[in-house]
Amino acid sequence: MPASDFIEEIKPKLIDWRRYFHQNPELGFLEYNTTYRLAKELESLGFSLWIGKDALKSDARYGVPGEETVREHEQKAAENGIPSPIMEKMVDGHTGVVARISAPSPGKHTAYRFDIDALPITESQESTHLPAAHSFRSAHEGIMHACGHDGHMAIGLGLATYISAHIDQLKGSFTLLFQPAEEGGRGAMAMTDRGWLHDVDEFYTGHIGIQSLPVGCIAATTNGFLASSKLDATFTGKASHAGMKPEEGHNALLAAATAATQLYAIPRHSGGASRINVGKLEAGRGRNIIGDHGFLEIETRGSTKAINEYMEAQANRVLTASAAMHASQVDITSAGRTEEIQCSPELASYVQESCENSLYVTKILRQAAVSGSEDASFMINAVQQQGGKATYMLFGTPLPHTHHHPAFDFDEEVLTAALDTFIHIVKGGGCYD
Amino acid sequence: MPASDFIEEIKPKLIDWRRYFHQNPELGFLEYNTTYRLAKELESLGFSLWIGKDALKSDARYGVPGEETVREHEQKAAENGIPSPIMEKMVDGHTGVVARISAPSPGKHTAYRFDIDALPITESQESTHLPAAHSFRSAHEGIMHACGHDGHMAIGLGLATYISAHIDQLKGSFTLLFQPAEEGGRGAMAMTDRGWLHDVDEFYTGHIGIQSLPVGCIAATTNGFLASSKLDATFTGKASHAGMKPEEGHNALLAAATAATQLYAIPRHSGGASRINVGKLEAGRGRNIIGDHGFLEIETRGSTKAINEYMEAQANRVLTASAAMHASQVDITSAGRTEEIQCSPELASYVQESCENSLYVTKILRQAAVSGSEDASFMINAVQQQGGKATYMLFGTPLPHTHHHPAFDFDEEVLTAALDTFIHIVKGGGCYD
Amino acid sequence: MPASDFIEEIKPKLIDWRRYFHQNPELGFLEYNTTYRLAKELESLGFSLWIGKDALKSDARYGVPGEETVREHEQKAAENGIPSPIMEKMVDGHTGVVARISAPSPGKHTAYRFDIDALPITESQESTHLPAAHSFRSAHEGIMHACGHDGHMAIGLGLATYISAHIDQLKGSFTLLFQPAEEGGRGAMAMTDRGWLHDVDEFYTGHIGIQSLPVGCIAATTNGFLASSKLDATFTGKASHAGMKPEEGHNALLAAATAATQLYAIPRHSGGASRINVGKLEAGRGRNIIGDHGFLEIETRGSTKAINEYMEAQANRVLTASAAMHASQVDITSAGRTEEIQCSPELASYVQESCENSLYVTKILRQAAVSGSEDASFMINAVQQQGGKATYMLFGTPLPHTHHHPAFDFDEEVLTAALDTFIHIVKGGGCYD
Amino acid sequence: MPASDFIEEIKPKLIDWRRYFHQNPELGFLEYNTTYRLAKELESLGFSLWIGKDALKSDARYGVPGEETVREHEQKAAENGIPSPIMEKMVDGHTGVVARISAPSPGKHTAYRFDIDALPITESQESTHLPAAHSFRSAHEGIMHACGHDGHMAIGLGLATYISAHIDQLKGSFTLLFQPAEEGGRGAMAMTDRGWLHDVDEFYTGHIGIQSLPVGCIAATTNGFLASSKLDATFTGKASHAGMKPEEGHNALLAAATAATQLYAIPRHSGGASRINVGKLEAGRGRNIIGDHGFLEIETRGSTKAINEYMEAQANRVLTASAAMHASQVDITSAGRTEEIQCSPELASYVQESCENSLYVTKILRQAAVSGSEDASFMINAVQQQGGKATYMLFGTPLPHTHHHPAFDFDEEVLTAALDTFIHIVKGGGCYD
Repeated sequence: MPASDFIEEIKPKLIDWRRYFHQNPELGFLEYNTTYRLAKELESLGFSLWIGKDALKSDARYGVPGEETVREHEQKAAENGIPSPIMEKMVDGHTGVVARISAPSPGKHTAYRFDIDALPITESQESTHLPAAHSFRSAHEGIMHACGHDGHMAIGLGLATYISAHIDQLKGSFTLLFQPAEEGGRGAMAMTDRGWLHDVDEFYTGHIGIQSLPVGCIAATTNGFLASSKLDATFTGKASHAGMKPEEGHNALLAAATAATQLYAIPRHSGGASRINVGKLEAGRGRNIIGDHGFLEIETRGSTKAINEYMEAQANRVLTASAAMHASQVDITSAGRTEEIQCSPELASYVQESCENSLYVTKILRQAAVSGSEDASFMINAVQQQGGKATYMLFGTPLPHTHHHPAFDFDEEVLTAALDTFIHIVKGGGCYD
Repeated sequence: MPASDFIEEIKPKLIDWRRYFHQNPELGFLEYNTTYRLAKELESLGFSLWIGKDALKSDARYGVPGEETVREHEQKAAENGIPSPIMEKMVDGHTGVVARISAPSPGKHTAYRFDIDALPITESQESTHLPAAHSFRSAHEGIMHACGHDGHMAIGLGLATYISAHIDQLKGSFTLLFQPAEEGGRGAMAMTDRGWLHDVDEFYTGHIGIQSLPVGCIAATTNGFLASSKLDATFTGKASHAGMKPEEGHNALLAAATAATQLYAIPRHSGGASRINVGKLEAGRGRNIIGDHGFLEIETRGSTKAINEYMEAQANRVLTASAAMHASQVDITSAGRTEEIQCSPELASYVQESCENSLYVTKILRQAAVSGSEDASFMINAVQQQGGKATYMLFGTPLPHTHHHPAFDFDEEVLTAALDTFIHIVKGGGCYD
Repeated sequence: MPASDFIEEIKPKLIDWRRYFHQNPELGFLEYNTTYRLAKELESLGFSLWIGKDALKSDARYGVPGEETVREHEQKAAENGIPSPIMEKMVDGHTGVVARISAPSPGKHTAYRFDIDALPITESQESTHLPAAHSFRSAHEGIMHACGHDGHMAIGLGLATYISAHIDQLKGSFTLLFQPAEEGGRGAMAMTDRGWLHDVDEFYTGHIGIQSLPVGCIAATTNGFLASSKLDATFTGKASHAGMKPEEGHNALLAAATAATQLYAIPRHSGGASRINVGKLEAGRGRNIIGDHGFLEIETRGSTKAINEYMEAQANRVLTASAAMHASQVDITSAGRTEEIQCSPELASYVQESCENSLYVTKILRQAAVSGSEDASFMINAVQQQGGKATYMLFGTPLPHTHHHPAFDFDEEVLTAALDTFIHIVKGGGCYD
Repeated sequence: MPASDFIEEIKPKLIDWRRYFHQNPELGFLEYNTTYRLAKELESLGFSLWIGKDALKSDARYGVPGEETVREHEQKAAENGIPSPIMEKMVDGHTGVVARISAPSPGKHTAYRFDIDALPITESQESTHLPAAHSFRSAHEGIMHACGHDGHMAIGLGLATYISAHIDQLKGSFTLLFQPAEEGGRGAMAMTDRGWLHDVDEFYTGHIGIQSLPVGCIAATTNGFLASSKLDATFTGKASHAGMKPEEGHNALLAAATAATQLYAIPRHSGGASRINVGKLEAGRGRNIIGDHGFLEIETRGSTKAINEYMEAQANRVLTASAAMHASQVDITSAGRTEEIQCSPELASYVQESCENSLYVTKILRQAAVSGSEDASFMINAVQQQGGKATYMLFGTPLPHTHHHPAFDFDEEVLTAALDTFIHIVKGGGCYD
C-alpha cells in the first residue's frame, strides 16, 4: 500500500481526532481526558506506554495549577470514566504520554513530539468560524485549542498508526512524545529531564500554520524562536478602608499596576529582538478597600538567551521597585522557560530529500523564520548536546486569524500534508550524512 | 419589667443572633438566607412583612451581581430549604425585608434601619480572633461580616422583640428596614424609592464601633460622611500573540493599569476632603496574549456632593484618556452612590435626653466626626426633605482591627448598649420640639 | 494730624512705591535692588538698619540660587549703582533688611513683617491688566510680583513713615522685618534664627487679597495655613546612545517622569488636608541620548505638621523607588519649609478694638480661613514660644485673577486700608490683656 | 608622489584640523565658525564654494534653533571676525558649505559628504580623556564633538587637499558636501533638496568608529541604519496655585511626564527593530504652581520606514491621550527625519578593489552591521533614485567610550586610514561595472 492510499484512508480519522480534541480542550497539566484518549489509541496500536508520572520528571514541571483546580479536574476526569489505575498515574497534574515501538530491523532511534494542551480563550461563536458552524466548538467554555495542538495530536496518532501498520518494513525504534503544557513553556523540560532523549539520533517536531504558507508547503527547519521566561509576580501590601484610613494602606494594587506600565517601558536591547508582556493582572478585593494583593503573569523573550536574561533582570528590578514604591512586598517565581534553537542543517537536507516525492508536500523551504517561543527547544537542545540531530518544521495552512485568537482555525488539509511529511521521514530510515 | 431586665433576658439571644449571622455571611443582593431568617423572626413577633420585591424598587438597585452568580446563590438557598413562596419574592437579587407594626395608641411614625450584607473578605483564622476561637468564623470562605452588620441585625431583632413585647404601652407606628447591600452604597436607594419613608416623622440608624469610643459611649449624631460614587470601568482592546504580533494588539490591560495609577493622581480639591480608590483590577487572559480586557472597580468620595462630582468627572476623563492611549474603548457604569448628610439637631437633643437614664449607655456625645460613606444618607435625606427628622448614631466598642480588616471584631457588650439606646428612643415616644 | 490726613497725604507715595517695586521684581535671595531701595527709604526715616548678612542667619536660608545666577545678579546690581559697602553686606544671596526704632516712652516691643520677593512668572501683556495698561509691567521678563509683595513693601514703607513721623507720641520700640524669599518658604527661618524676635511682645504680619473680601474688610487672624516642605530631587543615571545601545543607559529622565506621576498618587491622609505638587521637571540632554539627569521641584503640604511629615516621608519613598526602577540614584535636598500656625486670640480682640474707628477699615472679621502656606509661620511660632503674641491678618481686595496668575492684580485701595490697620495697631500701644 | 608620502606629509595637518574643530564645537545650524574655517581652507585649495543659503534649501531644514539662540551665535561669530559677506550668506541658521572642482579630463561626477556639527554634551575633564590631557578639550562648555565629526571634517579637508594637488592626474568632477546638523537628522535633506546630487554618479560617505573594528579595518558598505523621526511635543495646560486651588489647574507637567513613561511602553513591532527615546523633558515653572507647560524631545526609529511610521503613529496617539488625560493640549512638530538605506553592492566591490593596495587599509569588510540612524540616508536614496550608486563606509578605531559619551574619543590613526580610503576611491576614477 503506497503512502497516498494510507493517507486517503486515514484522512477521515485525522479529521475525527482533530475535531474530538478540539471540542474537548484541556489546559496544561490538566489534560487528563486528552492523555487517556491518546493512550487508548496508542495502546491499541501496539506501543509501549509511559503515562503521567512515568513520562515526566515531576519537579521539572513549571506552573502546575493550584491544588484546588487540579482536584476539581481530577474529580471530573474520574466521573467521566477514566479508570483508576490510569488516574493514579496522572494524579497531581502529571499528564502526557510517551509511546515506544521498535522495528524488527535495527536502525536509528528517532523521536517525534506532539503537544497536547489548549489555551484559556473563549472560542468564537460566529458562524464563519468552522468549529462553530460544524458543531465541534469547545465544550469547555473559556478553554480553546487556539494554537493547533488539536491538529498536532491528530497528526501524531496518524503517524503512530502508520508506524504500527508498517513496523515490519521499517528499521530502528520510534519514540512518540505527547507532551503536556507547551503553552507557557511548562511541560517540555519535565519530559526531557525524564531521559527519553538520551540516545535519540534524530528528533522531529513542528507546528502547523505559524507562517502564512499555503497548504502543501512545508519548512524543513526554522529559525527565530525566542528564548523566553515566564514569571509570576505576587504583590502583598496592607488593606485599609479607602475612605476612612487611606494613609494606613500599602497599595499592592497600585504596585501591580505601576509594574505593568513600567515593565513595558524596559529599554529594548540593541543586540536583537526582545519582548515583554503582562498577560494577566489581578489585584484588590473590594471597591472601598486599599488593595493588599496584586498578581501579574509576565513573559519576557529575547532572540538570544543573553537578551532574554537581560529582559528578565530588568523585569525583576522593575517589579522590586514597584513594590517598594507602594510599601509592598513582591514575590517573583518562575512559571516556565524556553530556549533559542539552531536546527541541524543535516536534517534540513534530509527532510528536503525525503519529501521530494510526497504527493501532499508540494513545496519545501529549507528554512523559515518564525517568532514566538517553544519549549520543544529543551528537547532539541538536549538531543543536539548528546550528539543527535533535531529540527522544528512548519506545515503551511492559511489562517483566518492568528494563533491565540478566539476565531483561530486552520485548513484541515494541512493534517495530511504534515502527516505525509512525517511518514516520509520515517520511511527514509533517517539521515545518513 | 424595666428595660434592664428585658436587656439581661434577651442578651443571650442577641449574641446567638449575632453569631449565627456572622457564621453565615452573604454579599449584597445575595442575602437570601439572611433575609429568610430575619423574616421568620419578625413574623413570629407579629410584624407585617414586605420581602424582597415587595420591599425594593427593583431598578433603583445598584450593582446587582451577574446572572450566573445570582442563579448559583438562589439554587443554594432553595437547597437549604427556603420555601418557594419566599424565594419567589426574592428571585433576581431582591433581598431585604421591611417590618411594620402599630401601637394601639396613636403617635409618631418612626423608622429604624439595619443593614444586613457582608464583605468579600477572607476571615482570619488566628486564635486571637474571637469568631475563630469560638467557632463562629464565616462558613462561606472569602465572605465575612467585617463591618459589624451581623451585630446590627441582632440589635434590630432585639428592638423588634422589645416593640412586640411592649406594643400596648407604646404609641404610634414602627417601621423596621432590614436593608440589603449597604456596602458599595447599592441598596438604600432601592428601599427609599419604594416609598417606606414618605410619612416617617423620625428616622434612626447607626453603626457600631466606627470611632474608638468605649462600650457604653454613644454619639447621638454624626457628621463627616462623604458623598461617594462607585464606578465600574470595563476596557475592551484587541488580543494578539505577544511574541509574534505585539503590534496588532490593543492593550486593554495596559489601559486599565494606566488608569489605575493616573486615577490616584487626580488633583485634590481645595474645597474639602476627597478620596479616590481603585479597589479591584482584573485584566488580561493569558501570559503571552496582549490583554483585550480590563476591569476596574472605582470609588470617588467628597466631603460635599460638588467635590464628589468633581472627582467623578476627573475620573471619567482619566478613564477615557487611558483607553485612548492604548487604542481601546472603555465603558463606565455607575455601581453605587451615597450622599452627604446633616443629622437633625433636634434628634441630637432627643437622643441625649431619652438615654439619660439608660443603665447601659454611660456617656452620650452630641456629635461625633466620621469619615467613610453610607447609603443610609439617601434615607436620611429623603426623610428630611419631606419634613421629618433623622439621625445617624454611633455605638462605642473597642476594635482590635479597623472595619474591613480580616480580623475585624467588636466587643459584644456593644449590642446591649445599642439596643438600650433604641429602646429608650422608642419608649420616649419621639421628639416633641 | 489725624490718621486719615496722614493716609491721604501718603497715598500717592504708596502707589508710587508699589508700582516701582512691581516694575522691578526680583526673585528670592536676589532682591539686591529691592533691598537697597528699601534701605535708602528706611535710613532717611531715621531707622537703624541691619542689611543682608547682618539681618540673616546665613546657613538657615533654604534654596539659595546657584552661584552663577547669584554672581550674574550681583554684577547687574553693581552696574546699577548699588554702593560697594551695601553690596558687600548682601553678597552671596544675603538680601532683606531689618529696621528698628524706639520711642522716647517705654512700652512694648512690637514687630512687623513684610515680604519682598517676586515669582518666576511672565507677566501678562493684556490691556485689561492694569500694570500693562499703566506701564508699570515687570521690566524683568519672566519675573513678576504676582503675589502682592510689591504692595506689602509699600505698606511697610508707609508704616515706617508713620512711625518715624509720630515717634514722639508713640511708646515702646518697633522692629520692621523686610524679609526676602518668602516664596518657597526659604527666607523667614534665616531672619528668625538671627534672633530679632527673641524679646518681641507682639508680632504682626499679613497678606493682601487672599480671600475674596471687599476693600476695607480685614481679618484680624487667620487659620488654615498648611505646613509644607519644599524638596529638590536630582536623579543621576547613565547616558547612552538611544539608537545604538539603549540597554546600556540608566534612564534618569524616565525615573524623574515616573516619580512625577507617582508622587501625585500618594494616598491622602484622613486626618486633614494634604497636597503635593511637582512644579518643575527638567531632564535629559539630547533627543537621541538616554537621559542621565533629572530634576524635580516638589512641594508637600499638610494641615498639620504630622500630615505634612507623612506626605514628605511618602514622597521620599516614591523618589527612591523611582530611581531604583530605572537603575538611577536620587539625591533629595530640602529647599524650604513652613509650619502651621495658631494666631493668638488676644490679638484678634486687640486688632478688632484698635481698628474700630478706622476710616479705611469698614469691616473686621475676627478670623478667616485660608489655604496655602507661609513661612511667617516660623516667626509667629518663635514669638509665641517665648511668650509673645502673634497674628497673621488679611486685607481684602477684589482680585481679577488668583495669586500666582500671570494677570494677578489687586485694587490699590487695599494699600490704604492695610496701612491704616497697622497704624491703629501701632497707635494702640499694644494689647494689654 | 605616491599616496603614502602624501599621507605622511598631511598627517600633522589632519591632527591639527581635527583638534581645532574638536576644541571649537558648534551645534547644528549654528556652525558659523566651523563653516567659515572650512570655507577658507577649501577656497585656498581652488574649489568653487557655495556657503550657507547657497548650499541649502532653506525650508527643508528641520529643527533650526530659536531666533534668540541664532542671534546670539551670529553676534559671537561676527565678534570673532567672520567677514560680513560670509555672515550674510549664513544668517538665520544657514551653515555648511559645498565645494566643487573639475579635473581637466572628463569622467564621473562623484560626491563626498562630511558632517560638521557637535552635540550638547559637557566634555569629560578626566586626565585619561585625550582632549583634556592634550589641551584641546571643548572651549564651549556643554558642547562637544562626541560623535567624531571633528575627524570627519579633517578627513574631508585632507581629501580636498589631495584632489587639489592631483587634479591634473584625475578625471571627472568632485563635489564635497560639508553638511550641517547631522545630529537629529536635520541638515541632510536641506542640502539634498538644493539639488547637488541630481547628476552624481557615485556618492561616498561614512563614519569613524561605529563598530569596534581595529584601525586599518574598514567596511565598504553598511546595513542596519534605522529610519527615524524626531518629534517635538509641546503641552499647554493651565497654571494654578498648587496649595490654594489645585483643582483649577490643568497639569501639563503631568501630561508630559505621563507621555514620557507611556511612550517607552509602545508595543514593539515583530517586523524588525524599533526604538523610542524621550531625550529631553522640560516642564513647569515654579514649585507651588500647577505646571501649565511641558516639552518633550522624542525620537522614534525602525529598521524599515513602515516600522518607524508605526512607532510615530503610536507616539502621536500616546501624546494626544496624555494631554487629554490632564485636560491639556499638545502640539506635535517634526524636528528631523532619516531614512533606511541599501548601499549599492557595486560600490562594495569597487571600494574593496580600490583599496587593495592601500598601505593604511589593512582589512576590508564587504559589509558591516550598524544601528542608529543617519540623515546621509536622504543623500544616498536621492543618488540611487536618479540612477547613481552610493555607499556608507565605516572606518575602524578603538573607542574608549561609545558615541555621545562625555569621554568619547578615537585613535587619530583612523584619520589616515579613512583619508587613504577616499584617496584610493578618487584615484580609481569610479566604479565601471
